[in-house]
Amino acid sequence: MPKRQPDAEIEAIRAVLAARPRPAELAERRRRLDALGGSYPLPGDIRVEPTSAGGVPAEWTEAPGADASRVLLYLHGGGYVAGSLTSHRPMVAEAGRQAGLRTLALDYRLAPEHPFPAALEDAVAGYRHLLEQGFAPARIAIGGDSAGGGLAAALLVALRDQGLPLPGCAWLISPWVDLESSYPSMASKAAADPMVQKPYLLEIAPMYHGATSARAPLVSPIHADLHGLPPLLVQVGSAETLLDEDVAFAGRAGAAEVAVTLEVWPEMIHVWHLFHPQLAAGRRAIAAAGQFIRAQLAA
Amino acid sequence: MPKRQPDAEIEAIRAVLAARPRPAELAERRRRLDALGGSYPLPGDIRVEPTSAGGVPAEWTEAPGADASRVLLYLHGGGYVAGSLTSHRPMVAEAGRQAGLRTLALDYRLAPEHPFPAALEDAVAGYRHLLEQGFAPARIAIGGDSAGGGLAAALLVALRDQGLPLPGCAWLISPWVDLESSYPSMASKAAADPMVQKPYLLEIAPMYHGATSARAPLVSPIHADLHGLPPLLVQVGSAETLLDEDVAFAGRAGAAEVAVTLEVWPEMIHVWHLFHPQLAAGRRAIAAAGQFIRAQLAA
Repeated sequence: MPKRQPDAEIEAIRAVLAARPRPAELAERRRRLDALGGSYPLPGDIRVEPTSAGGVPAEWTEAPGADASRVLLYLHGGGYVAGSLTSHRPMVAEAGRQAGLRTLALDYRLAPEHPFPAALEDAVAGYRHLLEQGFAPARIAIGGDSAGGGLAAALLVALRDQGLPLPGCAWLISPWVDLESSYPSMASKAAADPMVQKPYLLEIAPMYHGATSARAPLVSPIHADLHGLPPLLVQVGSAETLLDEDVAFAGRAGAAEVAVTLEVWPEMIHVWHLFHPQLAAGRRAIAAAGQFIRAQLAA
Repeated sequence: MPKRQPDAEIEAIRAVLAARPRPAELAERRRRLDALGGSYPLPGDIRVEPTSAGGVPAEWTEAPGADASRVLLYLHGGGYVAGSLTSHRPMVAEAGRQAGLRTLALDYRLAPEHPFPAALEDAVAGYRHLLEQGFAPARIAIGGDSAGGGLAAALLVALRDQGLPLPGCAWLISPWVDLESSYPSMASKAAADPMVQKPYLLEIAPMYHGATSARAPLVSPIHADLHGLPPLLVQVGSAETLLDEDVAFAGRAGAAEVAVTLEVWPEMIHVWHLFHPQLAAGRRAIAAAGQFIRAQLAA
């Protein structure tokens, strides 16, 4: 059987991850994820500006040549319990560069201190803030990875249900859309995935959904009615326990008459984009998302 | 709920299809599909050249500016029992134009006169012919729609298993990959799909697979081991009974470490590309495939 040459960069990242198992303490998990983003120097041409987006701490980033009339509202990952502006800043800035627009990353409230629907309320507030700032909805893209990808999907559903004008498109990276972790790749990809395992997900899921059902459509958007959503790009790695729920989500969105593009990237692990300074496939995936966003917002 | 403006062009096509139910006679079905392709005048700048590809009747098409070192080997649809060079000529020629290469369309043997594996043998012979003509494998793309999409997938698996060098990429339009028609959209999309219904598929499937099991991997590639296949683009409409098997196929290919892009096109019906002269979404889908093929063969 023909064998692709293994990707030496992702192998090196795997080796580092294997040597540093996930800490048990939540505070230490948060420090670890922030340290990942902090470990990559931000390119010198990126302008960063802290702000408040409808009461939610946030920050703008902008690369030279960005179209100031377009924006990517970004929702970071981290299982709803970790992640921050710091952890995702290099990736978000690079996405803005590739998409040719400004980015507004939201520091939404985290669980368990602030369970559902706090994060979703903050996301809605951030989107409303962009509308109040005068951005045309068709010139807004939503982005998110992992829990932030699930949150982005929930945001679209909430905006539709509230009758707000919808953004031009959304970009979901390895989105966590089934908080019950009920799809087969939780087992079939367990050995291949160095980051996300079912016991971990089942540990943190209740911190987020709290008294609300794990199957509630705004908690697990795999169960949401997806009609009327804008075009979606879903990117997922083949070495992910989340693979099957992401494929199923893309299929359900398509069946609901949403224009969906699903990309499965061989060998790639959960939110490989985060490692883009040391991973060509991460840069290519961000560039592909940039092209998608440019094409959708141009329409 | 926000409503997209319905696509008036696809609505008009639906009205024509609804007024002309599929004939019962196979000969009449074949004439009908050929007449569709024949109803669109071929652009005057397309050069058509009949040929024999390893003993299989075939034809070259070429638009001005085509890169003569690159080729799209195309396998038409028609349930393995209909379809021809005539039925698909305008679509294949336009795909060649958009991808900037020559096309070689194969007039492979049809069932029931020639059941499995006749069509697959012809497809392998056509590919070998291209290798013998000196085309580099990395500069060959495989394309196919419906039964031809399933045949294209089976061809890739057969080439891999025979140890032949694999092509650079493949483009599958609404591929028929489950000859048992066992996926839920056979029922959930039955009312939406004006062309393909489960009773029809279950009528023609045995004409093709004959004494071979409908679940054999080279008959229904949804059951094939897909490891080692080149990058795939799968395009499917949301108004298709085949939707779920195509999503599942993309997911299975991705899980097998194949680089997969799946596009679900809202409102579109089975192989809407065939109607491209009167359907902007058909032209857009062919253009997207052209971009995909250009990018993959450039690598």
